Amino acid sequence: MLKVYLSGEIHTDWRERIIDGSQGLDVTFSSPVTDHAASDDCGVAIMGEEPDKFWHDHKGAKLNAIRTRKGIEDADVVVVRFGEKYKQWNAAFDAGMAAAMGKSLVILQPPEHDHALKEVDAAALAVTRTPDEVVDILRYVLTGKLPT
Amino acid sequence: MLKVYLSGEIHTDWRERIIDGSQGLDVTFSSPVTDHAASDDCGVAIMGEEPDKFWHDHKGAKLNAIRTRKGIEDADVVVVRFGEKYKQWNAAFDAGMAAAMGKSLVILQPPEHDHALKEVDAAALAVTRTPDEVVDILRYVLTGKLPT
Amino acid sequence: MLKVYLSGEIHTDWRERIIDGSQGLDVTFSSPVTDHAASDDCGVAIMGEEPDKFWHDHKGAKLNAIRTRKGIEDADVVVVRFGEKYKQWNAAFDAGMAAAMGKSLVILQPPEHDHALKEVDAAALAVTRTPDEVVDILRYVLTGKLPT
Amino acid sequence: MLKVYLSGEIHTDWRERIIDGSQGLDVTFSSPVTDHAASDDCGVAIMGEEPDKFWHDHKGAKLNAIRTRKGIEDADVVVVRFGEKYKQWNAAFDAGMAAAMGKSLVILQPPEHDHALKEVDAAALAVTRTPDEVVDILRYVLTGKLPT
Amino acid sequence: MLKVYLSGEIHTDWRERIIDGSQGLDVTFSSPVTDHAASDDCGVAIMGEEPDKFWHDHKGAKLNAIRTRKGIEDADVVVVRFGEKYKQWNAAFDAGMAAAMGKSLVILQPPEHDHALKEVDAAALAVTRTPDEVVDILRYVLTGKLPT
Amino acid sequence: MLKVYLSGEIHTDWRERIIDGSQGLDVTFSSPVTDHAASDDCGVAIMGEEPDKFWHDHKGAKLNAIRTRKGIEDADVVVVRFGEKYKQWNAAFDAGMAAAMGKSLVILQPPEHDHALKEVDAAALAVTRTPDEVVDILRYVLTGKLPT
Amino acid sequence: MLKVYLSGEIHTDWRERIIDGSQGLDVTFSSPVTDHAASDDCGVAIMGEEPDKFWHDHKGAKLNAIRTRKGIEDADVVVVRFGEKYKQWNAAFDAGMAAAMGKSLVILQPPEHDHALKEVDAAALAVTRTPDEVVDILRYVLTGKLPT
Amino acid sequence: MLKVYLSGEIHTDWRERIIDGSQGLDVTFSSPVTDHAASDDCGVAIMGEEPDKFWHDHKGAKLNAIRTRKGIEDADVVVVRFGEKYKQWNAAFDAGMAAAMGKSLVILQPPEHDHALKEVDAAALAVTRTPDEVVDILRYVLTGKLPT
Repeated sequence: MLKVYLSGEIHTDWRERIIDGSQGLDVTFSSPVTDHAASDDCGVAIMGEEPDKFWHDHKGAKLNAIRTRKGIEDADVVVVRFGEKYKQWNAAFDAGMAAAMGKSLVILQPPEHDHALKEVDAAALAVTRTPDEVVDILRYVLTGKLPT
Repeated sequence: MLKVYLSGEIHTDWRERIIDGSQGLDVTFSSPVTDHAASDDCGVAIMGEEPDKFWHDHKGAKLNAIRTRKGIEDADVVVVRFGEKYKQWNAAFDAGMAAAMGKSLVILQPPEHDHALKEVDAAALAVTRTPDEVVDILRYVLTGKLPT
Repeated sequence: MLKVYLSGEIHTDWRERIIDGSQGLDVTFSSPVTDHAASDDCGVAIMGEEPDKFWHDHKGAKLNAIRTRKGIEDADVVVVRFGEKYKQWNAAFDAGMAAAMGKSLVILQPPEHDHALKEVDAAALAVTRTPDEVVDILRYVLTGKLPT
Repeated sequence: MLKVYLSGEIHTDWRERIIDGSQGLDVTFSSPVTDHAASDDCGVAIMGEEPDKFWHDHKGAKLNAIRTRKGIEDADVVVVRFGEKYKQWNAAFDAGMAAAMGKSLVILQPPEHDHALKEVDAAALAVTRTPDEVVDILRYVLTGKLPT
Repeated sequence: MLKVYLSGEIHTDWRERIIDGSQGLDVTFSSPVTDHAASDDCGVAIMGEEPDKFWHDHKGAKLNAIRTRKGIEDADVVVVRFGEKYKQWNAAFDAGMAAAMGKSLVILQPPEHDHALKEVDAAALAVTRTPDEVVDILRYVLTGKLPT
Repeated sequence: MLKVYLSGEIHTDWRERIIDGSQGLDVTFSSPVTDHAASDDCGVAIMGEEPDKFWHDHKGAKLNAIRTRKGIEDADVVVVRFGEKYKQWNAAFDAGMAAAMGKSLVILQPPEHDHALKEVDAAALAVTRTPDEVVDILRYVLTGKLPT
Repeated sequence: MLKVYLSGEIHTDWRERIIDGSQGLDVTFSSPVTDHAASDDCGVAIMGEEPDKFWHDHKGAKLNAIRTRKGIEDADVVVVRFGEKYKQWNAAFDAGMAAAMGKSLVILQPPEHDHALKEVDAAALAVTRTPDEVVDILRYVLTGKLPT
Repeated sequence: MLKVYLSGEIHTDWRERIIDGSQGLDVTFSSPVTDHAASDDCGVAIMGEEPDKFWHDHKGAKLNAIRTRKGIEDADVVVVRFGEKYKQWNAAFDAGMAAAMGKSLVILQPPEHDHALKEVDAAALAVTRTPDEVVDILRYVLTGKLPT
């Protein structure tokens, strides 16, 4: 069984498209919390308010790290999606962690980011443009079948 | 002796300010190639032209990885600088690698990036605003002396 | 599935409260032997009396280490509870082991210990005050749901 | 050459006694910052005040961790001193880190703590009562000579 | 349960013979994609054509590495088959990876390659001549029974 | 579930006594091939005769290492039995491997070997005299119950 | 200082050309024994004749592994040269070991081997055609200077 | 520079013969304390008498482990000498540790122990009969020169 962690952008349905497309394959998926508000506020919602926004964010980011680290450490393949907007430094950070742990790294990003992502792409085993390509890769890796 | 790798932004003199400020301390610094043009073109300059920009970048990014990996692996402390502009995904990628390797991570960034960098900052042992703060940290870590 | 090791204080019902509160979550718990008398005397009870109290303790502490090490090594998350009394050096020792192994560390302790525990807390991903907060964290990490 | 990290209590001269007694041996020592006030305030002194004492302590404890981690990771032998007073959870935390990293652990503690430290002592290669005993151990390990 | 990865030559039925012969044993097998055409073209079939044969091969080889790495990392035993023809550098590369990861290495090769494979064989726990010998080894390792 | 590897002496029924005594506990056992003749001759029986006794032994010892390594690597606890006769260097070798891998080591040996085994015992978490003591340890580690 | 291991083909002067070209750079080189006859016969020359060629080779290959392993483990960069002739499986084996250890891998090979080496090249950070290109890479990695 | 640890038998001059024979080679040697009486009594001589011989031995064996572990961990090559007499379980234990750490293992033993040492020898890169053979190996590994 192949364990895949889906890291990065949370504003489009790319995760659902990969998961749906992979039905019937011997693969399990995990991902970060993709509810943006919950993800931002989890720390203070559980452990108490912080007047300083920096520590508000800090408490939340550390809670999310419990899930993120487990997801990456348990994974065979880490797919990192860079969307068209935002800084997305957490996506690149996850990619760096995955690379240092020797995980198979697959990047999903639009061509306009090619130059800015060249160091990340250089550490990846595949650079893809669409969720369908990621599904095709998972199917090939698991079954040896190419898209027809 | 403390080994420090200075990762990230290459358009301002932050590295020089840290290195100059650290004179007299038992510390050595390493860093990526900071000549932007050389860094972009090193792959094709040495191993031959590529008509496709993706592979042009790819060859260069991999060459730079030889230096980057050694710098991070050899380091006790990795300082990652996020400037005010650009995507800087390679900086976040380096931070992720350093975190996964258990390096002591120090971030140098302006406050306006606090929210976008919260996952990176959550993995760091210090978040600083100026090169002088980084120098103060290195001095304190090595000598126990605080700024006066 | 998330594996959680519950380390530390054995005189209150904090473990039960966490385990009860986590029903329905995809989580398993392990913990040290919490029968104080058995834990103190296990070595000599099984392998023969020692006239010297130091070796009496030594034989027991080593037997307990078989269980403790497995619990920590197998865990994704290590929760360490510091109660209001006693030295509790074994709790801090477990926290150090967990931190060095890269486990996600959650501390459960009353505010009056904040200063004395600052080094331990600095290595943790969450510092909590009640078993309910720990349950809320486990639920959030596993399901993305915040307490309402 | 043997590298020794001296962790724990900072209120007596035990480090000086070990260092002085080891003159002529092929050994180097490192230790945490032992200036109590600097150690407590280093975070805010360098990176700015925090109104909340928890974050004041947090920033300082993380800075100190840069030095502590390097000291322990570089060491062959970690000596951990437990004094007669205070919680000293950072000492037990360091011992746990050292044990998990496979360092040779030497404990220096008064007999009245034997029972409370039994888990820590069980992970150690020596439990000593005086700095002179530590010196004798270092001399024996390096030269094979016993005290006369 | 013993996990076995079957690396190397893809032009004869040696894998089938081992798998068939191992029926009834507590063993699972994995292997690379053995459809030669699919293996060569998978990269461009999924992620788009490359005019340069080098990058055509490169994209494919990296995709195949996702499967190969997982197979080797998950395995207890790596069997590497060297056939009579071709360069088979990927087989020797897999053997090197397996050796560096501490896997039990079993080589299956004809005697005429003994001298050329001496470095590979020196890292192996068994050098065999036929698939039946590999089956006999798996049966012995799992059940203690020798062929009669 | 606790995984236990039973290494060492193969001439008495100590393994059976431990396995029988552990019925009802959540534990699985593995062990080397204990058929002495098969263990000695497995290499040449499968891969062909050797005129030189050294290589006869060598081929067999390497085959047995496939099983031994997996047993030790998969184990949480390694029990090593030293009987009253023979050199039993393979038992001490297994103990050294287990210690270096951080396994919990339990030694089972008669008192007359105490001095000769002192280095091995010093790396163990328990030194026992009878199979019943080993069973008592496994029961205590898994259930917290002491013998009555 | 960069440590480089030069693995592979021993029939041409590629090592000398790289070493000569790197004069003035902060780099040290190591390599296998390149005296073909000594390398083949070292085992029996030191430890006694073997009538069976397989064991003759075996004893020698293991001796050479002492040097090879140290060279690769100590290296930052492993350069593997594939010449135009011979099987060169030891070169591919070294490349696999280097890749699994996370070393920066540089391949030096003629274009006619591109397809056969695609799996090895896919794990490399650079694929070069001449010793001069390797020198240019080392100079760039160490000084940031490109060839003019 | 090659670091060699000389483990095992302490009653003959084999260490001196290897060290003397290696003059002029780029090699450093370390070894356990070879003063038998000091080695047996070091624990109680430094940390106080024990009425029970088991704990007398235990304290000493643990002290010696500080030196032994450092010697093995720092070494590139571990030479283990088995003499003609005694149990020598500590030698086999050291060999097991060295093997598990991936050290290059060289065994020095008389032929009459071949069968009893077959598991240890199977993990070694060389099995030698005289100190001169060990010297020849070190010279060959370092210089490529064979004995004439």
